[in-house]
Amino acid sequence: QGILERLDSGEVVIGDGGFVFALEKRGYVKAGPWTPEATVEHPEAVRQLHREFLRAGSNVLQTFTFYASEDKLENRGNYVAEKITCQKVNEAACDIAKEVATEGDALVAGGVSQTPSYLSCKDKAEVKAVFRKQLEVFMKKNVDFLIAEYFEHVEEAVWAVEVLKESGKPVAATMCIGPEGDMHGVPPGQCAVQLVKAGASIVGVNCHFDAETCLQTVKLMKEGLQAAKLKAHLMSQPLAFHTPDCGKQGFIDLPEFPFALEPRIVSRWDVQKYARKAYDLGIRYIGGCCGFEPYHIRAIAEELAPERGFLPEASEKHGSWGNSLSMHTKPWVRARARKEYWENLKPASGRPYCPSMSKPDGWGVTKGAKELMQQKEATTEQQLKELFQKQKF
Amino acid sequence: QGILERLDSGEVVIGDGGFVFALEKRGYVKAGPWTPEATVEHPEAVRQLHREFLRAGSNVLQTFTFYASEDKLENRGNYVAEKITCQKVNEAACDIAKEVATEGDALVAGGVSQTPSYLSCKDKAEVKAVFRKQLEVFMKKNVDFLIAEYFEHVEEAVWAVEVLKESGKPVAATMCIGPEGDMHGVPPGQCAVQLVKAGASIVGVNCHFDAETCLQTVKLMKEGLQAAKLKAHLMSQPLAFHTPDCGKQGFIDLPEFPFALEPRIVSRWDVQKYARKAYDLGIRYIGGCCGFEPYHIRAIAEELAPERGFLPEASEKHGSWGNSLSMHTKPWVRARARKEYWENLKPASGRPYCPSMSKPDGWGVTKGAKELMQQKEATTEQQLKELFQKQKF
Amino acid sequence: QGILERLDSGEVVIGDGGFVFALEKRGYVKAGPWTPEATVEHPEAVRQLHREFLRAGSNVLQTFTFYASEDKLENRGNYVAEKITCQKVNEAACDIAKEVATEGDALVAGGVSQTPSYLSCKDKAEVKAVFRKQLEVFMKKNVDFLIAEYFEHVEEAVWAVEVLKESGKPVAATMCIGPEGDMHGVPPGQCAVQLVKAGASIVGVNCHFDAETCLQTVKLMKEGLQAAKLKAHLMSQPLAFHTPDCGKQGFIDLPEFPFALEPRIVSRWDVQKYARKAYDLGIRYIGGCCGFEPYHIRAIAEELAPERGFLPEASEKHGSWGNSLSMHTKPWVRARARKEYWENLKPASGRPYCPSMSKPDGWGVTKGAKELMQQKEATTEQQLKELFQKQKF
Amino acid sequence: QGILERLDSGEVVIGDGGFVFALEKRGYVKAGPWTPEATVEHPEAVRQLHREFLRAGSNVLQTFTFYASEDKLENRGNYVAEKITCQKVNEAACDIAKEVATEGDALVAGGVSQTPSYLSCKDKAEVKAVFRKQLEVFMKKNVDFLIAEYFEHVEEAVWAVEVLKESGKPVAATMCIGPEGDMHGVPPGQCAVQLVKAGASIVGVNCHFDAETCLQTVKLMKEGLQAAKLKAHLMSQPLAFHTPDCGKQGFIDLPEFPFALEPRIVSRWDVQKYARKAYDLGIRYIGGCCGFEPYHIRAIAEELAPERGFLPEASEKHGSWGNSLSMHTKPWVRARARKEYWENLKPASGRPYCPSMSKPDGWGVTKGAKELMQQKEATTEQQLKELFQKQKF
Repeated sequence: QGILERLDSGEVVIGDGGFVFALEKRGYVKAGPWTPEATVEHPEAVRQLHREFLRAGSNVLQTFTFYASEDKLENRGNYVAEKITCQKVNEAACDIAKEVATEGDALVAGGVSQTPSYLSCKDKAEVKAVFRKQLEVFMKKNVDFLIAEYFEHVEEAVWAVEVLKESGKPVAATMCIGPEGDMHGVPPGQCAVQLVKAGASIVGVNCHFDAETCLQTVKLMKEGLQAAKLKAHLMSQPLAFHTPDCGKQGFIDLPEFPFALEPRIVSRWDVQKYARKAYDLGIRYIGGCCGFEPYHIRAIAEELAPERGFLPEASEKHGSWGNSLSMHTKPWVRARARKEYWENLKPASGRPYCPSMSKPDGWGVTKGAKELMQQKEATTEQQLKELFQKQKF
Repeated sequence: QGILERLDSGEVVIGDGGFVFALEKRGYVKAGPWTPEATVEHPEAVRQLHREFLRAGSNVLQTFTFYASEDKLENRGNYVAEKITCQKVNEAACDIAKEVATEGDALVAGGVSQTPSYLSCKDKAEVKAVFRKQLEVFMKKNVDFLIAEYFEHVEEAVWAVEVLKESGKPVAATMCIGPEGDMHGVPPGQCAVQLVKAGASIVGVNCHFDAETCLQTVKLMKEGLQAAKLKAHLMSQPLAFHTPDCGKQGFIDLPEFPFALEPRIVSRWDVQKYARKAYDLGIRYIGGCCGFEPYHIRAIAEELAPERGFLPEASEKHGSWGNSLSMHTKPWVRARARKEYWENLKPASGRPYCPSMSKPDGWGVTKGAKELMQQKEATTEQQLKELFQKQKF
Repeated sequence: QGILERLDSGEVVIGDGGFVFALEKRGYVKAGPWTPEATVEHPEAVRQLHREFLRAGSNVLQTFTFYASEDKLENRGNYVAEKITCQKVNEAACDIAKEVATEGDALVAGGVSQTPSYLSCKDKAEVKAVFRKQLEVFMKKNVDFLIAEYFEHVEEAVWAVEVLKESGKPVAATMCIGPEGDMHGVPPGQCAVQLVKAGASIVGVNCHFDAETCLQTVKLMKEGLQAAKLKAHLMSQPLAFHTPDCGKQGFIDLPEFPFALEPRIVSRWDVQKYARKAYDLGIRYIGGCCGFEPYHIRAIAEELAPERGFLPEASEKHGSWGNSLSMHTKPWVRARARKEYWENLKPASGRPYCPSMSKPDGWGVTKGAKELMQQKEATTEQQLKELFQKQKF
Repeated sequence: QGILERLDSGEVVIGDGGFVFALEKRGYVKAGPWTPEATVEHPEAVRQLHREFLRAGSNVLQTFTFYASEDKLENRGNYVAEKITCQKVNEAACDIAKEVATEGDALVAGGVSQTPSYLSCKDKAEVKAVFRKQLEVFMKKNVDFLIAEYFEHVEEAVWAVEVLKESGKPVAATMCIGPEGDMHGVPPGQCAVQLVKAGASIVGVNCHFDAETCLQTVKLMKEGLQAAKLKAHLMSQPLAFHTPDCGKQGFIDLPEFPFALEPRIVSRWDVQKYARKAYDLGIRYIGGCCGFEPYHIRAIAEELAPERGFLPEASEKHGSWGNSLSMHTKPWVRARARKEYWENLKPASGRPYCPSMSKPDGWGVTKGAKELMQQKEATTEQQLKELFQKQKF
């Protein structure tokens, strides 16, 4: 059954987790460029991660094609060997995802994300050409459906959806925005309306914010669609980091991004709360983004097991709510084998010299740079570089 | 070159990270029993994790035989399918480690750890028979050297070392103790002396405590050996969790163990500080235990690259001290591409409703149980169970 | 010069601090009832506190008549000796304030606050009669102006202002509300408009919230007045506690209220930031409420000394921005004698087992009680008592 | 009855709180010099604070003669008007304390503290002459007994005790040291022994550390005395600030000292725990130092009311364990009127951007200065000044 048949019938579809962060920690992705050349360089590592998400309960395997547009790969060219072309990265990503999907009950989704072309003010035709190049691979490899994700500007997201719809396949679209809306100030409700009008059957948010904030944003999208009398399925793939303190641009502005986010990592119990809230809000495509490891995805599947009627394979190695601890050698650890314990625990950081919240940067020293970039007056790499050099860091 | 040749020549040997915690998050190990049947059930997952540590810089691949003694596997029998015998688990662990070791410059170490037989007061002959059974597999598979690790009682550790020495291979021994010493009150210095006298060439600590505490303990071991005019190489494999608040028994007593430790996870920068301090203390076998992921091991290798003269393979996907961020699209993120930034950052938890330290439990309600167990008056499973049931949880 | 002459000429008027909290800590006021019988029982203690505020820079001495309405004093009758009548308490309060005012440049303001009569649904005439009784004393003692403060409902505040205006004296009115408005849901802007229309020349907020929240509320009041083309002076007297985590009803709902608020107490530097922000927002009557001690008031006077052209008397015993530390015996303490140091310090709590924020209660177990009370269906003491007894505490 | 008769009969004697900190907040003492010229300049303020402590339960009123030695007052001369001589300050302090003592059941103790003469290496005769000058006033005014307090070096404390013993009156001696001992490295046990041998009948600690640390130190003193078979009464007057993070020199080295200590202020419930622990340890002279306000002293008296058989006067305005809240208007606040609630509360700081612990300074940049000073090689004001100027602040 396809993605829309599943969602139309009321099924909960579980997404997968965050590839760039997980593979960065495993040694296959470089933070900064965040490009997915690992599909060609180390397919076994990508395959293993897909397999773990599948085993944890994912019903969708997204091709690892994040930032795999030609302009992005070229842009970060010094990191990518010559032979690793855009086409090869995308093809390998499809092959790996399709191979693993046969090991279980999962669909394969081809994914595109925001492009340097848009940020450097290329026109609609140029930007669409970039998406179309990736789409050609997805059509050749015959993925099940398509996702346009991680867009900060609804304008670009709409262009992506329009291209993906040329395929005739179902299209999902998620933006990396918070309740304040996109970088041009378009509110979430209007973003959702534009995306659905462009052809998206599933809309929502991914990345940049924690679960609580993402759910607020999806709620605003839902209300926008209702007000416009449009129908679409809802989707959420938040961060696995607590970010109550971030500003409009999300976790990228937090001083801990991306190499000191550890104290913010959510527990499996935090994810269970998220899954329940997402479900109660009417979201039926529930997954994760950066920071989501296989055990976080399993937590979604375990929380919604009563509704879905089954547990994922990886629950063989997990007792619900910690009940596997009843086999621990120490009695006081066995006493932790119960739901109330984990549900109510306020976990300590072990870091008494650290605060609990941070002030986002990017609002201080670099305010000028930021404003200019948001106004798209200085968004080419060269312009930003010059601007940056002028500032006193 | 063997482990002793390397250490004798002054080389820094980098250990690997924590298998049970990493594979629990990937869906292959069950918390509570913590047994390694994945070597038989899912060899591809174990193989991939070995490969990641190798790529990150590990010079030693420990066979994934933690808690793979026959008594432990039987003890946790309901979790392990009948056909997964002790011998098969240990053999598969050796095969996988040896296979991956050929992909790089690494030794394979066969490992044994503390046994239920000792905790339930079996005699020396019985406990030694348990270790000998694992040793037979290590000899058949011809591992490079042997490690006795995760011992809370030096008496049992000495027995393990004595058995392992029967092989003629080099033996390393690490205890999961803090500066207060073993569970019978033997101080670290005396533990080290006893282990060396029993035949260990390398001694140190692993697990249960954070890096700072582990280094204090190794320092006490070093002083004990010096006082006794004994020579041995030093080794440390701490937790990747901050645990300034734990008691004598380590992180197991912290209320967050094992399912809410996320806020305590160390960053790569914390690991660099650890590696430097360990090196300065004279430790030359430097690795990690529970919580250490491949990127943490890479941080050891990067910190000590000046001394060692080379970077690990996985550093291709990492810029030292965050310099890969100089390729980030946002200028204020690029401003984070420098050592001073990450070295001085006090990362926030994003959890304002949580404390920074916890009181260990096991010291309150279960004090009676604990004391009895430490006195070995009630250490059979049955006795503990009864004792536990009498208490008001 | 009177209060309005001062404000009309652009002068900054500094209010005083919180009497009930300061005198509770000194042993003269009982938390819970919070009534001011100390004016009769221990005039020397009240006199000394007035004197300290005067010395710290206060230009207004408020009579210590908080909760000194007859219905409140009777209500709390078991705490107040028979002879301590409402009239005596109010008269003594006026006498003490007037006596101290002669020692410096300060006006005396007679104050009324919210009444049990209103909360138990007495009608307008009855409630006004309560205020009128206090006003009679203020007229007899000829105070300089009048303040209606600490009102949760604008309806009652308006009645108070109407009564006070009968005197012909200038009237200030402050509500203990946050940006969400009064307990009946009237937004701050509308509250301000109603108060000015009722005759108040000065409007603002006091108590219940920290400085940051209070300034947001006053800003909304200012905008409401501008929209309605009304003119009035603005006033703020916030808590000296950090309360970023409180709900609509303010700090009373925080679990720490009132006996464990210590970690929330603001520093003198926090107060200087508040004074500057208040000034920049156009507020010219700047004081404090619960938690404000004399040194907090002095911090307002020191921050605004450049604008006002003078320091208060108590600054003889204080160096601006810690410069008195330049006389300390330890050189590293002398290094703290500078503005940047104190301005940027993030002070630690010394409480690693405590969180940084709390969830307000009153929204959980007692939600029923709260809702009923807010609907005024159960607001007599008797009804609340019954309701309370039915709940499972 | 005199102090020794009371203690010998097993009575609990309650000390008073911290004058310099309390009067700094009230506007009468300057932080940095911390001298007590307020006894002459503003006797009414000193009198009122004595009265509040008396009312709160203090059985001893210490003359406000801290840092009132002639060398200290001269040293800080620019702050003290010419006419305010050492003799006048000390005489006024005695007069005020004696006047207030007649209002209740309290003894008056004349106090001396460490001197600049000692720190700048004056000899024994010179230092003793300084103490003798203050003692002359205490004898003239006929105080009940004498206290030598706030000594960092036992050598100087012994000299002070020897001088005070010349009077024939009972002498108490407290040092501002932690478990690590005095600034020359003399451990607490030895300090106690030396003080008792010099003539002190009561020994203990005051200031510099929180209650928990102070009690550890007194315990070591007790053990030292027992080992030496000496008898003396024990005394503790800790800070009212949580300082788990301070180093050997106590709270002075914490970055928050002295103007941002607010988040560390202890609650009345913390004080009750302290009083109970002190009592259980055998301490019978229980008071407080810097930060202790009248309500903190009352908390000692309330905790020990069962043992003593009575409550202090100020408890008329306080319900034990918050029971006065049973009269609060809000039912959910009334629910806080019970011991378990306050005993178990972990109060939040309302400061999510602040850490819970700090690193003491004085160990970093100024390590050189510190070491020199501790070696007494650079302890004259001039030497320190030069040393300080050479450092890069």
